[in-house]
Amino acid sequence: MKPLIKDILALPAASQEVVVRGWVRTKRELKNFTFVEVHDGSALTGIQCTFEHTLPELSTGASVEIQGKLVPSPAAEQAVELAAQSLRIIGKADPASYPLQKKRHSFEFLREIAHLRARTATLGAVARVRSRLAFAVHEFFHQQGFQYIQTPIITTSDAEGAGALFQVTTLDLEALARSARAPDYQEDFFGKKSFLTVSGQLEAETYATALTRVYTFGPTFRAEKSNTTRHLAEFWMIEPELAFANLHDNMCLAENFLKFLLSTALCDCEADLRFFDAHIEKGLLDSLKSVLDSRFTHLSYTDAINELEKASPESFTCKPVWGCDLQSEHERFLTEKVVRGPIILTDYPKEIKAFYMKLNADGETVRAMDVLVPRLGEIIGGSQREDNLRTLESRMQELGINPQAYNWYLDLRRYGSVPHAGFGLGFERLVQYVTGMTNIRDVIPYPRAVGQAEF
Amino acid sequence: MKPLIKDILALPAASQEVVVRGWVRTKRELKNFTFVEVHDGSALTGIQCTFEHTLPELSTGASVEIQGKLVPSPAAEQAVELAAQSLRIIGKADPASYPLQKKRHSFEFLREIAHLRARTATLGAVARVRSRLAFAVHEFFHQQGFQYIQTPIITTSDAEGAGALFQVTTLDLEALARSARAPDYQEDFFGKKSFLTVSGQLEAETYATALTRVYTFGPTFRAEKSNTTRHLAEFWMIEPELAFANLHDNMCLAENFLKFLLSTALCDCEADLRFFDAHIEKGLLDSLKSVLDSRFTHLSYTDAINELEKASPESFTCKPVWGCDLQSEHERFLTEKVVRGPIILTDYPKEIKAFYMKLNADGETVRAMDVLVPRLGEIIGGSQREDNLRTLESRMQELGINPQAYNWYLDLRRYGSVPHAGFGLGFERLVQYVTGMTNIRDVIPYPRAVGQAEF
Repeated sequence: MKPLIKDILALPAASQEVVVRGWVRTKRELKNFTFVEVHDGSALTGIQCTFEHTLPELSTGASVEIQGKLVPSPAAEQAVELAAQSLRIIGKADPASYPLQKKRHSFEFLREIAHLRARTATLGAVARVRSRLAFAVHEFFHQQGFQYIQTPIITTSDAEGAGALFQVTTLDLEALARSARAPDYQEDFFGKKSFLTVSGQLEAETYATALTRVYTFGPTFRAEKSNTTRHLAEFWMIEPELAFANLHDNMCLAENFLKFLLSTALCDCEADLRFFDAHIEKGLLDSLKSVLDSRFTHLSYTDAINELEKASPESFTCKPVWGCDLQSEHERFLTEKVVRGPIILTDYPKEIKAFYMKLNADGETVRAMDVLVPRLGEIIGGSQREDNLRTLESRMQELGINPQAYNWYLDLRRYGSVPHAGFGLGFERLVQYVTGMTNIRDVIPYPRAVGQAEF
Repeated sequence: MKPLIKDILALPAASQEVVVRGWVRTKRELKNFTFVEVHDGSALTGIQCTFEHTLPELSTGASVEIQGKLVPSPAAEQAVELAAQSLRIIGKADPASYPLQKKRHSFEFLREIAHLRARTATLGAVARVRSRLAFAVHEFFHQQGFQYIQTPIITTSDAEGAGALFQVTTLDLEALARSARAPDYQEDFFGKKSFLTVSGQLEAETYATALTRVYTFGPTFRAEKSNTTRHLAEFWMIEPELAFANLHDNMCLAENFLKFLLSTALCDCEADLRFFDAHIEKGLLDSLKSVLDSRFTHLSYTDAINELEKASPESFTCKPVWGCDLQSEHERFLTEKVVRGPIILTDYPKEIKAFYMKLNADGETVRAMDVLVPRLGEIIGGSQREDNLRTLESRMQELGINPQAYNWYLDLRRYGSVPHAGFGLGFERLVQYVTGMTNIRDVIPYPRAVGQAEF
């Protein structure tokens, strides 16, 4: 393959002849000189190409092939630049209509041209950091002896009995409406009503109780009509599941995992993260490094409520009460004001957590954990799973879940049951956290949200 | 984390004290001895544990924790075994109802208990090979400077205008039927009719023309009601896309990629592949090694038809004719009988390929390529993409595709267009090919096909 600009920039400036390929980001013309900055998305920086003449036909967005000699750069930011000898314009970009001109564009505008926005500095950097983090996920689990499994996207069961679902169908809805007869799901593709998955956890548990350490990394869906900067209808989730493990093992895994992701990003995406620190969120680098250097504080939900009750009542719009879910303001108060560092909260009241979490001996709390970090609040949620058949069945009955529908899931507690645990990390939340990007729609190539499924 | 059996088996047998955790696969009782084979899915082999007494309460499928000393094994297959000192049964498995007894089970039966089947030797090996191959995909592209992008699952456009689609909706179908009025898609979640994607290629092209080298690896969907051993309704696809590249670059990439995957599997999954060679498909290892050692033959579609016409007419149930799609029997004849090795077929008639493939100067053929391998036929399909705006528009008009609906895709040819190319590899086909498994439903944890979306 032809060399990337990233590789060319790393060459010694010994007057090597090279060919640069990419897209023109900027052009500056002086009397007898033209400076052209060419990018190919392989790095934050492009390569500066100097021509000893003007280039009237060249404009921003054009694709080019430039041949020349690599020479030391007088600019401070880069070691080398290209003394250009010849230029071939591969594809033009009409300045009258090309939407990405030199000026700064709003993220709202860029979302409307999502097919072109990866050509900008910010969205290109997001794409590189996202890609590096995704690979780091696989590296971490591979090194730790986890098997990657792909759990189903289309499902006829609903992992938590919670959350609005997207229905998947091949029924002809126009014909259905005309028929005026209730839909017959025996006629549907799968022979029954089917949906997009909200989590791969239950299926991951079936593989963890066979292969000991597994993880999923795939798309999950919520049909919530919320229009926020933190929610998507389609998002990617990472869900490890670990057999012969309790909540303590789960907490260690989550802390090590998060630190591996942060250290990889800090190390391998240094230039991109410096860009985000300078242009998107001041203090980003220090904040990430501080989490990396912290020991995560372990705190029970009950102790956390006690801490929150000590705070002045004006600190919150919503009063913290034992038995209620913590709000984002509470989580951020704990991690930013009380502990001033990452926390793992554990042992939540069973009423606010899912049926599959292991019941503590007190009969009131479950072995849940949420990892909270400054700037964001909750980044990871998980639990030890209930491995006792009778307890799990009675929890399901309490919550009105039909155990019959989860017979396969209960089989894991019937045959060779083991203590096991796992957690979920929303991948877009992670990318937001690492880049400092404000809106989650800017950290996934083509965001899906209510009213939005363009491209 | 506690050590895996894979790690324990690699320890020197210096009478180390270890604790083994896993599930009992078999138990053999002699007069004063019991031999228990314990598996944890980390490797094909389990660990043999020897007790100097009987264990009446222990049965196949139970989860155990066994403490003992590692000693040299008299058996040929393994270096060490465990002289057991103590046993803790964590979870029993009632022999009267546990479906996975010592005897061999049919794959059909195992599909009905897909939540337990990864506990068997064959399905466990499939899971490990699948996981290793998935990681190899990411390793390969990461090493080669490709960025991993996640293209959307829910889409309002249809990549090839071909293939039956699953509709995604939050409309209440019961209410729709009662209303007897045509569905109003403005009321649907995304404000228009939406579907599950059949390919991420078009979106991948938008990122390749910004970041130069990208790939996708995610689920794709076909609502075809075919009930075969080679098709799934939900399957995972790998789609690299490469800018500043022609068909030749694409062929090199495909060959290098496939060889990297095969050499990784042969090297890192040796025991599992030997198992498949012995029990699933004789000659598997030789067949994989032979592809690894081959230079892929390049052959045009037209030359391939000529070769097929030379064969005796009885060779095929369907006569090969220029202008028609090659059947699997033709592909296998070419790779198994004519060339006796992997082939890349190129330059297919435009009528049998998609609208986005680059038109050759002859106006009749396109820069398509299919990679064929012995035992399977087509494993990879790809092309150089049409980068000329006018040619692409007229191809779309010829095929009755509305260019207006693909305006964003055409923008890539309006602004800084570059020659680019890519291909698709069906991940389950790859796993089938590497393991020799006959039915594609046995190489994905929870297969989705017509009438089948259990678990």
